[in-house]
Amino acid sequence: MSVLVVGSVALDSVETPLDGMHEDLLGGSASFFSVVSSLIVPTRLVAVVGADFPEEHVELFRSRGVDIEGLQHAEGRTFRWKGRYLKDMVGRETLDTQLNVFEQFKPQLSEAYRDSEYLFLANIHPALQLQVLEQVRSPKLVACDTMNLWIDTERDALTKVLQRVGILLINDEEALMLSGTGNLVKAAAAIRAMGPKQLVIKRGDAGALLFDDAGIFWSPAYPLESVVDPTGAGDSFAGGLVSYLAHTGDLGPANLRRAMVYGGAIASFCVEAFSLDRFRQLSKDEVLTRCEGFNSLVSFEPVKL
Amino acid sequence: MSVLVVGSVALDSVETPLDGMHEDLLGGSASFFSVVSSLIVPTRLVAVVGADFPEEHVELFRSRGVDIEGLQHAEGRTFRWKGRYLKDMVGRETLDTQLNVFEQFKPQLSEAYRDSEYLFLANIHPALQLQVLEQVRSPKLVACDTMNLWIDTERDALTKVLQRVGILLINDEEALMLSGTGNLVKAAAAIRAMGPKQLVIKRGDAGALLFDDAGIFWSPAYPLESVVDPTGAGDSFAGGLVSYLAHTGDLGPANLRRAMVYGGAIASFCVEAFSLDRFRQLSKDEVLTRCEGFNSLVSFEPVKL
Repeated sequence: MSVLVVGSVALDSVETPLDGMHEDLLGGSASFFSVVSSLIVPTRLVAVVGADFPEEHVELFRSRGVDIEGLQHAEGRTFRWKGRYLKDMVGRETLDTQLNVFEQFKPQLSEAYRDSEYLFLANIHPALQLQVLEQVRSPKLVACDTMNLWIDTERDALTKVLQRVGILLINDEEALMLSGTGNLVKAAAAIRAMGPKQLVIKRGDAGALLFDDAGIFWSPAYPLESVVDPTGAGDSFAGGLVSYLAHTGDLGPANLRRAMVYGGAIASFCVEAFSLDRFRQLSKDEVLTRCEGFNSLVSFEPVKL
Repeated sequence: MSVLVVGSVALDSVETPLDGMHEDLLGGSASFFSVVSSLIVPTRLVAVVGADFPEEHVELFRSRGVDIEGLQHAEGRTFRWKGRYLKDMVGRETLDTQLNVFEQFKPQLSEAYRDSEYLFLANIHPALQLQVLEQVRSPKLVACDTMNLWIDTERDALTKVLQRVGILLINDEEALMLSGTGNLVKAAAAIRAMGPKQLVIKRGDAGALLFDDAGIFWSPAYPLESVVDPTGAGDSFAGGLVSYLAHTGDLGPANLRRAMVYGGAIASFCVEAFSLDRFRQLSKDEVLTRCEGFNSLVSFEPVKL
């Protein structure tokens, strides 16, 4: 089995209240996703970088086993994002976004890539997501992310994408915006009627909610003594979830809940360090141990009177 | 066994985005707590109301079995709070607070009340909380709430209270303020060093966290299609938690988790209607059914690779 992700590979500049500004870190949705996913399943990265992209970052992908045949190298500068986290380490403001080589990005999949079974369309223009969907022959699962900008300005293209998506992963504000409601339960019903069989609503330090035919599942955020940099937590969560489903080959409701917990565990490691630093050495055993921590975090015996 | 609560009985005016302004509703921490607690355990209410307090509210207490021997009637007007909820139905702004008869409130416990075994000191001035602690002979459990105002202005008295408290229940902002840290896990350790053996941090629509010697337990907020009025949810949670502990007579860690879930179920009913309206008819069976809903909300099978 194989996972393919298409999304951004970026150079991030991140400022946090405790650690100040860190410049030109490896970032981007597809970076986080592919490195996480490669931990347990072969993963193909489709993205574009510029001539300024450091070879050490390519080396990180290689060392973690990411298939980088689909990583295009273009003339010009790599996609850049600059942001600042607020005191609560959840809220953030974007200081600068430079699309650079991403402006001309056309995802072109090789013959081998077109047979990928598990597909993650990270947060990129819905028209690009559609281009990828046209190329992949018969995926077992399509999972997808999007953002407020596309919900606001590219509703038609996004609607077409959603009709072909199995699992949509978005945050709470995006869910309310996409559905036009003020309540997450109502939003979930409305969004699932647009296409996705399953909806994951990411809620930052409150965890993530899965809405499917089996009901609602709440995977909390693991309480940490130190949150260093939340950047990439959502994409790491998605990488954990999709790779767990691909590794197990089971898309049933009980396994989806396991995949949510696995994704939550991965996301909790992500925020412990800047950039992808926590994933440089992360082992499967560490992840499984944290999954057990999730179990003790939420388990209780039946309430009786 | 018996539960005693000291706190406010108030007339609230509450504005929400969907339903507009509702005036002179029954409110106050001790009102929510006592009505909830009386569902499963004899509960004594110690508070003060003014000459304007409607007899129908006294009748509600009576009809739900609350022991109102300790409800003082004073000349003047009842304590009043006026607030407006923001669009997210979590954030709120206080528009007006009138202490009225509460300014002269001196909690005086009868001989019988002094033998109460389970004590809840709702959010009132720490000096009043100390007065109550002096009067109750040998409580099995003291649980306590407080607020940013007392943390800021009455630190000495609050410190004395905390040294005598078993379970402290506060919200996340108060926990950060009380501990002087920016992280809930660090805050919990610092606050438990001030006295409380167990700390419950209430996080609104993210649920509540229990910190004790057994670790951390996360009771999520039950996802609802409609939140009408969040006022009193925290006091209802406390009423559910303390009454469950009193009813079962078990202060062990496994039972504390059950009590957290029972409190969460109660709080989820509270927000479904204005004031205490949802508790007028609520049955134990409805609460137990929702507790089972909490179980299906968080349960998952072991994650394996």
